Amino acid sequence: MKINQNYLSLNDSYLFSSIAQKVRDYKAANPNKEVISLGIGDVTRPLAAAVVQAIQEAATEMGQKDTFRGYGEEQGYHFLRQAVAEYYAKKGVTLDADEVFISDGAKSDLANVLDIFAGGQTVLIPNPVYPVYHDTNVMVGNRIVYTDGTEKNGFLPMPDPQITPDIIYLCSPNNPTGAVYSKSQLQEWVNYALKAGAVILFDAAYEVFIRDKDLPSSIYQINGAKECAIEICSLSKTAGFTGTRCGYTVVPKSLVRSGAQLNKLWLRRQTTKFNGVSYIIQKGAAAVFTQEGQAQTRSDITYYANNAAVITKTLNKKGIWSTGGINSPYVWFKCPDGYSSWQFFDKLLNEANVVGTPGAGFGSGGEGFMRFTAFGNAEKTLQAMKNFEKLF
Amino acid sequence: MKINQNYLSLNDSYLFSSIAQKVRDYKAANPNKEVISLGIGDVTRPLAAAVVQAIQEAATEMGQKDTFRGYGEEQGYHFLRQAVAEYYAKKGVTLDADEVFISDGAKSDLANVLDIFAGGQTVLIPNPVYPVYHDTNVMVGNRIVYTDGTEKNGFLPMPDPQITPDIIYLCSPNNPTGAVYSKSQLQEWVNYALKAGAVILFDAAYEVFIRDKDLPSSIYQINGAKECAIEICSLSKTAGFTGTRCGYTVVPKSLVRSGAQLNKLWLRRQTTKFNGVSYIIQKGAAAVFTQEGQAQTRSDITYYANNAAVITKTLNKKGIWSTGGINSPYVWFKCPDGYSSWQFFDKLLNEANVVGTPGAGFGSGGEGFMRFTAFGNAEKTLQAMKNFEKLF
Repeated sequence: MKINQNYLSLNDSYLFSSIAQKVRDYKAANPNKEVISLGIGDVTRPLAAAVVQAIQEAATEMGQKDTFRGYGEEQGYHFLRQAVAEYYAKKGVTLDADEVFISDGAKSDLANVLDIFAGGQTVLIPNPVYPVYHDTNVMVGNRIVYTDGTEKNGFLPMPDPQITPDIIYLCSPNNPTGAVYSKSQLQEWVNYALKAGAVILFDAAYEVFIRDKDLPSSIYQINGAKECAIEICSLSKTAGFTGTRCGYTVVPKSLVRSGAQLNKLWLRRQTTKFNGVSYIIQKGAAAVFTQEGQAQTRSDITYYANNAAVITKTLNKKGIWSTGGINSPYVWFKCPDGYSSWQFFDKLLNEANVVGTPGAGFGSGGEGFMRFTAFGNAEKTLQAMKNFEKLF
Repeated sequence: MKINQNYLSLNDSYLFSSIAQKVRDYKAANPNKEVISLGIGDVTRPLAAAVVQAIQEAATEMGQKDTFRGYGEEQGYHFLRQAVAEYYAKKGVTLDADEVFISDGAKSDLANVLDIFAGGQTVLIPNPVYPVYHDTNVMVGNRIVYTDGTEKNGFLPMPDPQITPDIIYLCSPNNPTGAVYSKSQLQEWVNYALKAGAVILFDAAYEVFIRDKDLPSSIYQINGAKECAIEICSLSKTAGFTGTRCGYTVVPKSLVRSGAQLNKLWLRRQTTKFNGVSYIIQKGAAAVFTQEGQAQTRSDITYYANNAAVITKTLNKKGIWSTGGINSPYVWFKCPDGYSSWQFFDKLLNEANVVGTPGAGFGSGGEGFMRFTAFGNAEKTLQAMKNFEKLF
């Protein structure tokens, strides 16, 4: 019996546990200070009323003999796949419901989609990055090549013609930087992928934060993307589902590699290794796409967007370089006065009682930067920014 | 870009679609006949009242600012892991809550657990078998060796000293045969695995159907099992969760291979590639383990067990060889008069208007046998058996 040796190459991540420890230590030493966190990328607004109602009605159905439901289709109920397809139609993207797969969230599918590819391939990953991209590729023994986000490129790295990748990860609006690719930039990526025969894994988890009509909120708004991209999305941020768990993955039927439709391979993967998302949760998710659900969830997005605007305004006022924040719940900024990420984290905690996430925690490309999130309480975000201003 | 070529070696399964097509054809030709299905392994009793209530209360919590919950621990909430540990304690098995991982069902974990092992290993799989064991191992390129269930061994194959497996699949009570290993038989398997350094993946999805106190309902009731076995279980059959989706996997801390604790590897797998089961569903699952939930769900198990008894009694009366049925929701019987599985399926459908599952659909070892399930309506099961009797 041999274990998967790749697991031994993984570094343990101490980012959020190190942050939590530093905060605990500070609070213990300063019991009267209020510490405000702009650190964690988790939502705080409750589920929309339409979602709660749909979940409760579905639970009632499941408790009655005549409306009880057993196994559903592994790829999700048609009512929800259809609702997602109609959501895309409003963006000008035509999808068949059979191109949509309901998942328990973006993280699972971003990781599991590697099952349908061979191991040992060349994977292009942005740096700084959501750690899941990196770790899941280490687990399957892929060769990772980085493409660096920098202040110069606005943390929007572009294709490198020297590299011929097999798999490309893109996340826009980006986690952790909040930067958003334009249509022409994504077109360059699509052209590059098509030329290399690569597959783009497009993480659209923050698409709902895009306000600027000229920015793409789906890669399928780009010509040729249906021949090279899988799009992975989630209701975690769109509708506060981080604890409720539902998302979706789009695999176009026109996406073919080695003569195989990836849609069919993914369907085979899901029917064999997954049994679908709870009917009850799928009913809650479907409520997000109703008129009522859209109105309720969009009001929370506006709430978070206002927080992001407050943060960005403060940074601008202080002349601190930042990106994100406008079409994203994340604000990524350069630590002032040449501070390193962790040095500025300590200063911020000790002198302003505010918690951010050190950019270095997202990879070497994040050193010297910091992430604030807009998912907190509005009054506290405002207070945090007042404290922040006093630092300078 | 290379796809995972192993996917091209998978055979498409037409078992249940072929059955459905034959039933549709028969109904179209005989619109006045009532066809009763004892074919599909899916539950029909509604969720217990305690479960529905817990889900609805959790949804209410999620809709309110002060009780809303975002990301939970990927391995599941402590309240549910603790409830599972206490359930095991009643079986005489001592588990730490950190040895329990909450999943969205047995199928996912039975498949995903292969992630932590190297590929290309020797896997011992019973035949006939739940197709997921076979297909997931083809997907990762393992070498599959079969151990045959036969009428002679009561469909309880025992270790073959000629083979040195790395991974062993056992399912008891078995799907599809309903056969249950005794403690001494499981002890032989554990001794064999320990000697080979193999890991047993023990599928306990039907453990709740065991009535005979002498039969093991967990492999951890066997000496040495915590050093060689991972146990995968589900609430699908225990509490009617096939559409609600929740299960659990036990990885003992004392299970070490290649110097690594498999518990740590699985935790790393789950924290990287999974974001946990919905809080709402975990609350529903926890209700199963309360006194009220246990009483309500056990009453459904009794209902199904009565169906199984009705089926078994009829087969005995007609002198047809069968196994399962007593400590299992499945009854596995030999097709009379030398019929093949599909020949008898047709006879049963056309002459008795009853649908079974042809044993041949579960692998070559199932040819000449048939599976009936006890998950249907009691009156209809009784009627089906009356029709069946008239065949002879």
